[in-house]
Amino acid sequence: MMRPPLSKDTRLCISLAGRPSNIGTRFHNYLYDLLGLDFIYKAFTTTDIAAAIGGVRALGIRGCSVSMPFKQDVIGLVDTVEDSARAINAVNTIVNDDGHLTASNTDYLAVQRLITEHRLDSSQSVLIHGSGGMANAVGAAFRDSGFANGIVIARNTDTGAALARHIGYEYAAEIGSRSADIVVNVTPIGMAGGQEEHQSAFDASTIAAADTVFDVVAMPSETPLITAARETGVRVISGAEVIALQAAEQFERYTGVRPTPEQVDAASAVSRA
Amino acid sequence: MMRPPLSKDTRLCISLAGRPSNIGTRFHNYLYDLLGLDFIYKAFTTTDIAAAIGGVRALGIRGCSVSMPFKQDVIGLVDTVEDSARAINAVNTIVNDDGHLTASNTDYLAVQRLITEHRLDSSQSVLIHGSGGMANAVGAAFRDSGFANGIVIARNTDTGAALARHIGYEYAAEIGSRSADIVVNVTPIGMAGGQEEHQSAFDASTIAAADTVFDVVAMPSETPLITAARETGVRVISGAEVIALQAAEQFERYTGVRPTPEQVDAASAVSRA
Repeated sequence: MMRPPLSKDTRLCISLAGRPSNIGTRFHNYLYDLLGLDFIYKAFTTTDIAAAIGGVRALGIRGCSVSMPFKQDVIGLVDTVEDSARAINAVNTIVNDDGHLTASNTDYLAVQRLITEHRLDSSQSVLIHGSGGMANAVGAAFRDSGFANGIVIARNTDTGAALARHIGYEYAAEIGSRSADIVVNVTPIGMAGGQEEHQSAFDASTIAAADTVFDVVAMPSETPLITAARETGVRVISGAEVIALQAAEQFERYTGVRPTPEQVDAASAVSRA
Repeated sequence: MMRPPLSKDTRLCISLAGRPSNIGTRFHNYLYDLLGLDFIYKAFTTTDIAAAIGGVRALGIRGCSVSMPFKQDVIGLVDTVEDSARAINAVNTIVNDDGHLTASNTDYLAVQRLITEHRLDSSQSVLIHGSGGMANAVGAAFRDSGFANGIVIARNTDTGAALARHIGYEYAAEIGSRSADIVVNVTPIGMAGGQEEHQSAFDASTIAAADTVFDVVAMPSETPLITAARETGVRVISGAEVIALQAAEQFERYTGVRPTPEQVDAASAVSRA
């Protein structure tokens, strides 16, 4: 199947980012073609986020993915802010229904869904390493899924303590000898191309003490942490799962069509090629 | 040649109209494909023209074609208004250079160019039948090309007298027994699908008394007036020429590439199929 030729009825979806990449453009257009949907998707940047969101509304642009540095700024520019975005004060998805803009955060929704799908036990303890935007999404998703016993580890004492306070978890600057049933890496450690590409975010004893290791780093899909956790025999949740779920959620919100996991995998492979 | 796949660097051009058609979308995308240009074009409508133009600026949308009912409203929303648009207080083309919006009117420019290409003699008399938006473009283009001796014929005494006054021509509600060297039809008479589809905008004696018959109606390309003028042996200028020239001008302003007349003809044929 192919999407139909461009016409006045073709729906446009866009992204807004300080530094646009081609990943979203490739991902969504690949699936539009595959599913024969009359949509196009293109990345944009802007120096005037208020006018850009005003343009999304006035032009009837169907969907708008939001990246840094606009995730907070758009909250005051939309009509409805869903709980997923309100929980972390950050938006990554805007849907336009006839001029009514609804903002959500599909990263938060993806983490919540993974917690459910992997049947994580909310009586277990959680250790979250990191305090950036994604760490906020992960922390709030655990907290809102009933995980009351948690700690945030972050070298940045400002953002780390703020996140911990926000979700009612403990805070520590260094992991030290701490362990938990569920340990989550939301730092760039292990990320392809990063300074700590070949390091594991947690050491062997922390991995061995855990039931579940969750690495939000998605590139590569097999980080040193994921590899070590698999070898130790603990349950693994990967960043690739987060990316795939959030993208499927976003795609469905824009088009009304939920792509299958296989379709999402194929689109992800194409978009990162 | 084909245009490259959609990427973050693809330029978007749009149109804004109260009732969008597919003609511009087909015309421009056909030429992007033919010329291998990394552009896409899509028609939009809006209920908030100020926010829509603000969005064009903020999103870096490269070009914006403007149709009824927005041609006057956008004048106050752009940064530079060229003489072609100022002469008739109507914009049909906006070009966005890094957030600086320049408005022009390629209908006016096309008529001026036809006057030059057909070497019309500015000492001759001009009769303009009609007083709508396009009649304003035609009248101002003749006046600004040095044609001082003219008359506007229009049943609507308000718009007809206003146009005549604006360009310093005479005004009459009915043509009566009047004639002129150059007679121009800017009414819907002879337009395909219209109530007066099979009528000629001028009678045989007016045609016979003229040197040049100019019919701005473009659909069909051979109107009853054009056919009658050819049979009478007077010079003919057709609406198809206006459409082709204004579209080529608009296309060049958006892309920097001037399509050949043959390419414009092919694109026009596709866009009206």
